[in-house]
Amino acid sequence: MIKAAVLGATGYAGIELVRLLERHPETEISFLGSKSFAGQKISDVYQNFRTVLDAECKELDLEEVAKCDIAFTALPHGASKSVIPSLIGKGLKVIDLSGDYRYDDAAVYEQWYGEKHSSPELLAESVYGLPELHREKIKKARLIGNPGCYTTCSILGAAPLLAAKIAETKNIIIDAKSGVTGAGRGLALQTSFCECTENAKAYKIATHRHTSEIEQELSNIADESIILSFTPHLIPIKRGILATIYVNLNRESSAEELAEIYRNFYKDEFFVRVKDAGEIPETKHVAGSNFVDIGVCYDKRLQRAVVVSALDNIVKGAAGQAVQNMNLLFGLDEKTGLDMPGYYL
Amino acid sequence: MIKAAVLGATGYAGIELVRLLERHPETEISFLGSKSFAGQKISDVYQNFRTVLDAECKELDLEEVAKCDIAFTALPHGASKSVIPSLIGKGLKVIDLSGDYRYDDAAVYEQWYGEKHSSPELLAESVYGLPELHREKIKKARLIGNPGCYTTCSILGAAPLLAAKIAETKNIIIDAKSGVTGAGRGLALQTSFCECTENAKAYKIATHRHTSEIEQELSNIADESIILSFTPHLIPIKRGILATIYVNLNRESSAEELAEIYRNFYKDEFFVRVKDAGEIPETKHVAGSNFVDIGVCYDKRLQRAVVVSALDNIVKGAAGQAVQNMNLLFGLDEKTGLDMPGYYL
Amino acid sequence: MIKAAVLGATGYAGIELVRLLERHPETEISFLGSKSFAGQKISDVYQNFRTVLDAECKELDLEEVAKCDIAFTALPHGASKSVIPSLIGKGLKVIDLSGDYRYDDAAVYEQWYGEKHSSPELLAESVYGLPELHREKIKKARLIGNPGCYTTCSILGAAPLLAAKIAETKNIIIDAKSGVTGAGRGLALQTSFCECTENAKAYKIATHRHTSEIEQELSNIADESIILSFTPHLIPIKRGILATIYVNLNRESSAEELAEIYRNFYKDEFFVRVKDAGEIPETKHVAGSNFVDIGVCYDKRLQRAVVVSALDNIVKGAAGQAVQNMNLLFGLDEKTGLDMPGYYL
Amino acid sequence: MIKAAVLGATGYAGIELVRLLERHPETEISFLGSKSFAGQKISDVYQNFRTVLDAECKELDLEEVAKCDIAFTALPHGASKSVIPSLIGKGLKVIDLSGDYRYDDAAVYEQWYGEKHSSPELLAESVYGLPELHREKIKKARLIGNPGCYTTCSILGAAPLLAAKIAETKNIIIDAKSGVTGAGRGLALQTSFCECTENAKAYKIATHRHTSEIEQELSNIADESIILSFTPHLIPIKRGILATIYVNLNRESSAEELAEIYRNFYKDEFFVRVKDAGEIPETKHVAGSNFVDIGVCYDKRLQRAVVVSALDNIVKGAAGQAVQNMNLLFGLDEKTGLDMPGYYL
Repeated sequence: MIKAAVLGATGYAGIELVRLLERHPETEISFLGSKSFAGQKISDVYQNFRTVLDAECKELDLEEVAKCDIAFTALPHGASKSVIPSLIGKGLKVIDLSGDYRYDDAAVYEQWYGEKHSSPELLAESVYGLPELHREKIKKARLIGNPGCYTTCSILGAAPLLAAKIAETKNIIIDAKSGVTGAGRGLALQTSFCECTENAKAYKIATHRHTSEIEQELSNIADESIILSFTPHLIPIKRGILATIYVNLNRESSAEELAEIYRNFYKDEFFVRVKDAGEIPETKHVAGSNFVDIGVCYDKRLQRAVVVSALDNIVKGAAGQAVQNMNLLFGLDEKTGLDMPGYYL
Repeated sequence: MIKAAVLGATGYAGIELVRLLERHPETEISFLGSKSFAGQKISDVYQNFRTVLDAECKELDLEEVAKCDIAFTALPHGASKSVIPSLIGKGLKVIDLSGDYRYDDAAVYEQWYGEKHSSPELLAESVYGLPELHREKIKKARLIGNPGCYTTCSILGAAPLLAAKIAETKNIIIDAKSGVTGAGRGLALQTSFCECTENAKAYKIATHRHTSEIEQELSNIADESIILSFTPHLIPIKRGILATIYVNLNRESSAEELAEIYRNFYKDEFFVRVKDAGEIPETKHVAGSNFVDIGVCYDKRLQRAVVVSALDNIVKGAAGQAVQNMNLLFGLDEKTGLDMPGYYL
Repeated sequence: MIKAAVLGATGYAGIELVRLLERHPETEISFLGSKSFAGQKISDVYQNFRTVLDAECKELDLEEVAKCDIAFTALPHGASKSVIPSLIGKGLKVIDLSGDYRYDDAAVYEQWYGEKHSSPELLAESVYGLPELHREKIKKARLIGNPGCYTTCSILGAAPLLAAKIAETKNIIIDAKSGVTGAGRGLALQTSFCECTENAKAYKIATHRHTSEIEQELSNIADESIILSFTPHLIPIKRGILATIYVNLNRESSAEELAEIYRNFYKDEFFVRVKDAGEIPETKHVAGSNFVDIGVCYDKRLQRAVVVSALDNIVKGAAGQAVQNMNLLFGLDEKTGLDMPGYYL
Repeated sequence: MIKAAVLGATGYAGIELVRLLERHPETEISFLGSKSFAGQKISDVYQNFRTVLDAECKELDLEEVAKCDIAFTALPHGASKSVIPSLIGKGLKVIDLSGDYRYDDAAVYEQWYGEKHSSPELLAESVYGLPELHREKIKKARLIGNPGCYTTCSILGAAPLLAAKIAETKNIIIDAKSGVTGAGRGLALQTSFCECTENAKAYKIATHRHTSEIEQELSNIADESIILSFTPHLIPIKRGILATIYVNLNRESSAEELAEIYRNFYKDEFFVRVKDAGEIPETKHVAGSNFVDIGVCYDKRLQRAVVVSALDNIVKGAAGQAVQNMNLLFGLDEKTGLDMPGYYL
């Protein structure tokens, strides 16, 4: 059994990790770290776990964590900085859910996060944890920078067109709609029920940090530097991201050809489900699952592909992807503990 | 492996059964019956199942169903009448999710449903499928009348006080709030989004059929005839029933004593979680799970217990309970395939 | 024009007052008090008001407020204590939306609020601002204790049965469901979107302060001391309270007779709409309006009335009722500025 | 007083018209037409109107309607065809909420609606009822084609950039999110609560009829033919459209300059509120009002404007705009009966 530590277990990404790991047949949760709820049972903080998992949350204790095989760090930005190098030093595999280890280039990190990177040497060896693009590197990594939720949805939605060299790399526009769990469990007026329900809004237009991750990965695929529009929106659902992606094509195409390009690109991917021509994903088809559903339409008048991708932001966009990465790190079948369908209801 | 047929697989109770059975380690789904969607894949109707379960829905075919070990009938009221006797005749176990086989006395059925019972002889042998009260009978039954959602929540909430002889049997009031899946998938103005969201209402006051089930079971426990108020409400959530139950006590008590009575009554029950004194259940703690959470408060001024019970209406209130019954019928550990925690998010 | 001050203008009750007063043909808003947002425009805090009302929020300034004819105090519990006596001293009419001036007897206040009343002499002269019961006293008052939201809904729902002497005064049970605006704008985990949507829960069972207001008023009507069960619930809607009220009757009755009792009791009340026999109110019929809708059912088996009353907690349950009281205080038609229908959508 | 007929009064646009006209100081509702609910009171169909407006719904009766000064036709597509020419013939002003009279060119109608236009001669004289663009023509019209909801939001969001000749006319992309009232009151699985809540989806990608209206109006402004991407999405809110509009600029600019362009373009428009640089609209700021809020951001990296516009689809996107048009037709102050702020809560 893989011994796992979850640091930051009581945030929304953390508790979803706990939920997946508790069901995972090859893992046991050996350490639940929570600064805010240390000393309380996880099942007091999230009462859905009563009798299923009543383990106690603890203050971070590096000696204890070091007895584990892997640590998942779902810590507030900054908190993970000192912890991760120690854990790596003690021989653990680390999957970090923050933005700290997702970049090829520290300069990009510094530009978008507005601060120096604290451990550029670790950044250099960390692997971007998107298995559909970096599976082989992930298998051999010590440190995984687990991708952001918007990022996974956007990259997987656009990648096949770029790989197929049918996309124009200018004028790519990603308009993404996110559920509220993406904002985390911290209290904020804008995520209070009365302010948030029955409302839709855009935010951080042209400035959201995930833009840089998307550009990095898509540029790598296209083998040229891509800059694009990424607009996040908040809508009143709990789970789910829907990304609508506009890509001009460099030649005429058809809905059928585009679907074929996608099916081909993802033919070996269990977690990516490509829709038939004319079908469009919905977040309720993926909520609660690790699937990404992708549908691609062709606008003949404009010679433009309109791609829609959907995933659950705290599963494939966070905790599920982290478990998928863990499976790869430990040589397990990649879908172990992750092959459930979405909730729908 | 147990071969299971689900008749009425594309309604909300049916599809939840499919979701649970697909994960169940000892079962295979051998027949998916759906009149409305015959010829379509279940994963076209509920696209969350794509690649997980792509089996085709079929018109009811008794010969095909007869090859199964068990049939779950989640059919519209009336439709199951002719089917169930045939299936029993062919040696299948049947778990019926309608109201047809839940009564000790055909006269009660006829009073509340306003029609003659079509197979009173089967009604006589059918067992009320509430494992917490009728486990031993269920194990030996051929035909289970799977309880209603409101019913399960109400009975399990009130039973311990009656069994302990601390309850006055007059003036029991059950005020229940239900999520919208309880109304099924059929189209109706009152369950359309714009009419239903941001709204709360009561309905069928003093006339809801589930009242009769609740009275039957609580009367059996109390060993006297109980009539009570049951008021259903519709609130804008998908999953969940919250029942608030008012019971006058025949002597002084305390929150601690009442909690102890409940803990004791349910001490061997995996799926009933009794809250500590002062704690109150919430539907989000049980949504997506087969648990019933129960909290009991004591109003000293009025010598009255106020009990709150919560469950997921399509799991413990329908499909999960049906699987729990199946586990008993086939000698499996009762919690097989059902021991997941709720979603919370 | 009546010059009005709103103290605590940026809370949910405060801003609803602002919205109603801004439309009111006989009132001008002369002072907007907000400690948290002093110096900002009200239309920066609530951007729906942009160009409609761009007045600046100010720190409390008693001299400024004293130039007004009336002050509405929607201040946090405690904050109003020192302010109200000053304003009364300066000759203003005051309508207080807190619980401080709602009681006939300081001892009841002290029992439920757990502290000494700071101005019992003002409490003695203040009038309970429920126009349907205390219209004449309100007209002559200087200080109004504006009723709570749960309270208004509960009292108006039960009063006619008590006045008609058809109610048993024991075993009255009020099961109330509230929208989330009732919890105010302050940040709390339980009112954050992800914790609150798709959830239903009860809270403060047998201990909610509004119980004491309900008991006071119903006891006055019945001319005997009534104690009762009041259970508040939180459901995921913004506006609205639905109270389901169970009252045993001291003789047989019928749905028609009960409806007649209600119609008769409220025959002169514009804001109370009694449903025909068999009809049941819904919160969407009253949300956004100052109406209370009441329907009454008769449970023949139990000789019990089941009453459902519905109102908008921040209109008839707070701001609208305050304006209704203002209209009475200043000799205006009681429905001035308040006769709009609910939103429905 | 203007005598108004509302044909199709019980649909969502119709009932919102009724709500606005009932409050309108210069109008009386003289005829409520409803095929589905003829013979019932409007207040039985929408119980929020009880005691406020209890008029009876009637089958269409041209003689009765002809006694009115104006008819609003909110009829199903096709139903208005025969009615409108008659009403015009009888000298009424007509504001039609369908798509039938919105086009400059019958060929465009026929291309997007897939059928011959039944009265091209009326189409020739009808005026597109967007007062911010066509005020003077509207004042003199007999027949107004009241714009679609998506259309109004999109056109007003993009118009200033095109008028200022700063926009590139290629690569305009409009990604719009709509509340569910936009789908009307008819029953459909996709708008049932359980299918619709907690879900986000796109639909009719590259094929939605409103695309053609948007293109018509923006082409007129730009004085060149524009084709663009318009993608509608359904999100679980009742009221509101949020359009995110991407427009490449033909030269460098700044957030401040863009805001100035918008402020200037709309300087005389009461119902268009331009946000300051850096501010972004939200649907809750406009829900329940006739306002359109517009914010514009500048993406320096891409020399692209990202505009967000928000309105209430059944007010400014339907009924409110219709009343605004009526005010113009009858020489009233354009904001009569329409100057309320949004609900926010």
